[in-house]
Amino acid sequence: MSVTAAKGFTAAGIAAGIKQNGNPDLALVVNNGPRRAAAGVFTSNRVKAAPVLWSEQVLKGAQVSAVVLNSGGANACTGPKGFQDTHATAEKVAEVLGRAPIEVAVCSTGLIGVLLPMDKLLAGVETAAAQLSEHGGEKAAIAIKTTDTVHKTSVVTKDGWTVGGMAKGAGMLAPGLATMLVVLTTDAVLEDDALDRALRAATRTTFDRVDSDGCMSTNDTVLLLASGASEVTPEYEEFAEAVRQVCDDLGQQLIRDAEGASKDIKVEVVGAATEDDAVEVGRSIARNNLLKCAIHGEDPNWGRVLSAIGTTKAAFEPDRLNVAINGVWVCKNGGVGEDRDKVDMRYREVHIVADLAAGSETATIWTNDLTADYVHENSAYSS
Amino acid sequence: MSVTAAKGFTAAGIAAGIKQNGNPDLALVVNNGPRRAAAGVFTSNRVKAAPVLWSEQVLKGAQVSAVVLNSGGANACTGPKGFQDTHATAEKVAEVLGRAPIEVAVCSTGLIGVLLPMDKLLAGVETAAAQLSEHGGEKAAIAIKTTDTVHKTSVVTKDGWTVGGMAKGAGMLAPGLATMLVVLTTDAVLEDDALDRALRAATRTTFDRVDSDGCMSTNDTVLLLASGASEVTPEYEEFAEAVRQVCDDLGQQLIRDAEGASKDIKVEVVGAATEDDAVEVGRSIARNNLLKCAIHGEDPNWGRVLSAIGTTKAAFEPDRLNVAINGVWVCKNGGVGEDRDKVDMRYREVHIVADLAAGSETATIWTNDLTADYVHENSAYSS
Repeated sequence: MSVTAAKGFTAAGIAAGIKQNGNPDLALVVNNGPRRAAAGVFTSNRVKAAPVLWSEQVLKGAQVSAVVLNSGGANACTGPKGFQDTHATAEKVAEVLGRAPIEVAVCSTGLIGVLLPMDKLLAGVETAAAQLSEHGGEKAAIAIKTTDTVHKTSVVTKDGWTVGGMAKGAGMLAPGLATMLVVLTTDAVLEDDALDRALRAATRTTFDRVDSDGCMSTNDTVLLLASGASEVTPEYEEFAEAVRQVCDDLGQQLIRDAEGASKDIKVEVVGAATEDDAVEVGRSIARNNLLKCAIHGEDPNWGRVLSAIGTTKAAFEPDRLNVAINGVWVCKNGGVGEDRDKVDMRYREVHIVADLAAGSETATIWTNDLTADYVHENSAYSS
Repeated sequence: MSVTAAKGFTAAGIAAGIKQNGNPDLALVVNNGPRRAAAGVFTSNRVKAAPVLWSEQVLKGAQVSAVVLNSGGANACTGPKGFQDTHATAEKVAEVLGRAPIEVAVCSTGLIGVLLPMDKLLAGVETAAAQLSEHGGEKAAIAIKTTDTVHKTSVVTKDGWTVGGMAKGAGMLAPGLATMLVVLTTDAVLEDDALDRALRAATRTTFDRVDSDGCMSTNDTVLLLASGASEVTPEYEEFAEAVRQVCDDLGQQLIRDAEGASKDIKVEVVGAATEDDAVEVGRSIARNNLLKCAIHGEDPNWGRVLSAIGTTKAAFEPDRLNVAINGVWVCKNGGVGEDRDKVDMRYREVHIVADLAAGSETATIWTNDLTADYVHENSAYSS
C-alpha cells in the first residue's frame, strides 16, 4: 500500500528508460488534498545534489503537491546544468498536474557526476501521470530501487487516519548511488509545524541511527506529505508515534537489505551520562571496521568494542565498562567477564550492549557487518 | 641496524614462548649511556593497555634505561593484574640490568583481554639480557612482529651522529593485535625537551597521518631514546629533520605492509584554509569505505571523494572543489572534469589530490584500499 495507503494520494511507477537495463526508474506521488502540508529532512552532507538543493527550497513553502523520484542517476556534482534539469523536471510535473512548480519536490538516486537523460525523464513524467492510481504505491516503491533487492513499504493505521511510506537504499551503504530516499504520506489533518516536529523527532531516533557503513550521501531525503483527506485531527503524540513506527519499520528494512551484509548489528549503549554520549559511543562502535569484520567472523571480540569506546569523548571510566554480546557479559569492569565461548553468533541478528556505567541515558544504533561481498559490490560497480 | 645503529645501545630479540607458534616474541633495547634522556608519545585512546599506563609514568621522568617489548599479548583490558604484570616485567628488567624499574618502559602487542604468561615472559627477560649485543637491532625488530610480513627498520646517519629505529604494526590496521610500536634511538647529545619537541613534531606529520583503517589502538607507543654516546650536539633543526625522516620511512613501511591491502593511497589535500582543515578532509577521504572499495576496484570514483569532503567542517565551496586521481583532474569546480578513462590505476600506489580552493595549506594522509583479504584477515582471527 505504501504511499497510497493514506487517503488523498495517488502514485505511479514506470520504466522511463533512465536505467539502461529497462527496470522501473521513475515514480510519481501526488497529494490530491484537500490539504497539501509537508515537511522534509535532507542530507547534512555539504556536497548536495541538485534535487536536494531544489527540494529544500520547495519545503520552505511547506506545501507539496507532488514528489517525482528517479533512480538511474543521482544528478549530483552536475553543476548548473544539473540544477536546470531538476527545475525542468519540477516544471513538467507541475504542468501535467496543473499545479505550481514550487510545490513539486524532486528526488534522484544513482551514479554521481552524470547528467540525466532529460528527454526520457520528461516523457516518463507524462507516462507516469497518466497511470496515477490510488493503488500505485507499490509500483512507486519498486521504481525507486537501485541496488535494493526488495522494495520497502510500511503502513500504520489508527482510528480513521493512516501513515504510510516507502523507502529505498541501505543506510548510506549503496555505492555511487549512495542514497536513502523516503516518502511518507498521511491523511491526518495537521499543521506544518506539527508535521515538521513529528518528522524530525522520528528521523532523529530511526533513520539517523541506521548507520550501515558510515558513509553519508549527497542525496538523502525524507519527505512527509499530509492530505487531510481523513478529516481527522489526531493528538500530536499519537501522530508522532505513528510516524516514528513507520520510520522505524522502514529503517529496519534498510538494514536487513544492506549490500553484502550477513549480520544486522544492534548496538545498544546504556548507562550513558547523556543521550549525546550514548549516540557518539554507538556510532563509534558501529563504524569500527575491525569490529565489523570480527562480527562477520562470528567472533565476540569485545576488545574491539572497548577500543572503539575509547576513541570517544563520552563520560566513562575505562575500568567500569561492561559489554554484552548476544546476552553474555563478555567484558565486566573493563576486563574479562563471562566465558566468550558462551556467545552464540550463528544468527543474522547480533545484539551488542555497551554499558558506560556513567548514567541512565541510552541510544541504539543499527549497523551491518563488513564482508567480502560488501567489498565486491562496492569495488566492481561503475568501473 | 635498527635501534643499535646509534652508539650506546644494545638489543636482543628472542622466542620466550609467549606466542604459541614459537616465533620470536620478546625484545629488549638497552641504553648504555652516558646519557639516558628519552621522550614518548602514546595512543590517545582512553582505553589504554597496562604497559601504556606504566610507560607514560616512566616517560614523565624523561630517563629511560631500557625498553622491553613483547608480542603475543597486548595486556590490554586486563585490570589490576595486568598492571601488576607490567610492573613485574619492568622490575625484572631493572634487576637484570642493575637499573631502577622506573627507568624501564614496557610495550606489549597482541590480543586484547588476555593475561600474559608471566613465567615465560620473566624467564625470557633473563635470556634476552644474556644476548644483548650492539648487533641485536635486527633481532629485536623481528621479535616485535605480529601480523607483519616483514620487520621494519630505518637509519639516518649524519655528521658523527645517528638516528635509527624499528616499528611493528600497520597503522592501526592489525586485528585484536591493534598496535603500532616504534622505538627510535640516537647517540646525539640532546636535552629532554628538545627530544620531546622533535619527536612530537615528527609523529604529528608522519605516524599520525598513517591511517590505514581508521581504528585506534589501545597500545600505540613511540619512544625516542638518546645515549649521547656520539658526544655530538647537533643543531635542533637538523636533528628534528633526521627524526622526521626515520619516522616517515617507518610510516611508509607500515602502509606498504598493511594487512590485506592491494593499494597504498596517498591523499594529498591542497588549497585548504588551515592545516587542520587539510588534515580533517584528508582523514575523511582516507576513512571512506566506499572510496576505499572503489580504489580497490581501480575505479576513479571522484563522487565518493566529494561525498567524503562534504561531511567535514572545513572551509570550501562545493562548486569550487577539484579532484585529481593519478594526475588526471577528473573533477573540476565540483563537477565532471577530464575524462576518467584517462586514469591509470594499475599500480599499487594511488595518488589522490583534493583541492579545496580555499587557501594555501596542505596535508597528506596515507591509507590503504579496502579488500576482501582485509575482511578475511580480520574476521578469521581469534575465533
